[in-house]
Amino acid sequence: MATQTGVPEVVVERLPQYLRALAHLKESGIEVISSQQLGDLLQVTPAQIRKDLSYFGRFGKQGRGYAISNLLAQLRSILGLDQTWNVAVVGIGRLGRAIISYPGFEPEGFRIVCAFDSDKAVVGQWAGGLMIHDFSTFKKVAGAEGVQIAVVAVPAAAAQDVIDQLVDAGIKAVLNYAPKSTLAPADVRIRNVDPVVALQSMTYYLSAAR
Amino acid sequence: MATQTGVPEVVVERLPQYLRALAHLKESGIEVISSQQLGDLLQVTPAQIRKDLSYFGRFGKQGRGYAISNLLAQLRSILGLDQTWNVAVVGIGRLGRAIISYPGFEPEGFRIVCAFDSDKAVVGQWAGGLMIHDFSTFKKVAGAEGVQIAVVAVPAAAAQDVIDQLVDAGIKAVLNYAPKSTLAPADVRIRNVDPVVALQSMTYYLSAAR
Repeated sequence: MATQTGVPEVVVERLPQYLRALAHLKESGIEVISSQQLGDLLQVTPAQIRKDLSYFGRFGKQGRGYAISNLLAQLRSILGLDQTWNVAVVGIGRLGRAIISYPGFEPEGFRIVCAFDSDKAVVGQWAGGLMIHDFSTFKKVAGAEGVQIAVVAVPAAAAQDVIDQLVDAGIKAVLNYAPKSTLAPADVRIRNVDPVVALQSMTYYLSAAR
Repeated sequence: MATQTGVPEVVVERLPQYLRALAHLKESGIEVISSQQLGDLLQVTPAQIRKDLSYFGRFGKQGRGYAISNLLAQLRSILGLDQTWNVAVVGIGRLGRAIISYPGFEPEGFRIVCAFDSDKAVVGQWAGGLMIHDFSTFKKVAGAEGVQIAVVAVPAAAAQDVIDQLVDAGIKAVLNYAPKSTLAPADVRIRNVDPVVALQSMTYYLSAAR
């Protein structure tokens, strides 16, 4: 499935993984890497890496590999990570509160700026320094806060309804923690955080006779 | 990187995604699918799907596609999902409690059977029907409970030390929620739940001029 930009979505989804690997290499003091070495690290063919990057320009020099700092900066720019993104969390139960206090978002440029729930018992309370707003006010509050991304941490049964309302409010990117497949218009991106898929790729190795 | 079974780890990591897609198709009442159709759905080339599956045997019939129920059953068996796996959660803060109450594990065969923390203030308390054990007793308690997989939900600074102790206790599969890269011996699998990677693949589409 190609997007309006002509870059297949699966390619865009791989770029953050390249970014992560390159950042680790840079931290280790490595300055240049070949597509072969990067491929070995990521378990992807070098041809795949070259093809993926070719959608966005010419990076490495023939026979000399990629200058890591330069490629990192370019990938961050391509992915829109040279700015801060404002995030709303919807559903402030245990999971929502854990998300608000998760320390991994802010250093990567994702700032949680507001919190929503539909339970009157928690609306008006505070979670991690944020007042919990009534979800019925999402459009107004999120608009005023400049929210571009919503994180959904509601029960599975409520997920589709919440996402429908986010779409109505103009949200184009949703990180969904609810264990449920959801639907949205083609111009809205949904990514699911699904720990079960990760577990299922480990049981292979745990099974008997391996 | 190939494993001792000769199947590249990246192939094993793709199988749960095939499983997920096939399960959705089956729920929709579809009985047969071609590698082309499955590839379109997953944004992978049909050749890649055929190659991945070829590591495990011959499934589809030439020109007739894959019988979905049969392929599902075989993939579940290959991945070791035709049994229940006992899981321990380490780190019973907000995130650990959210994981214990997450309803998506049990239907997929992952049963959380015990909980651990090193904070004396919470040890002995209950979380989601489980008594919180002192992490120093992990080896004994997890052994008695038949734990095969550990979920780590401790702060980033504690993650490596906790994983070292899990490895000492004989754990071979770790689902790590701590926002930190960790190391383990080659025969131990670690999967990281990293919501930032998912966010970073959406900002591409949110950036200006697309």
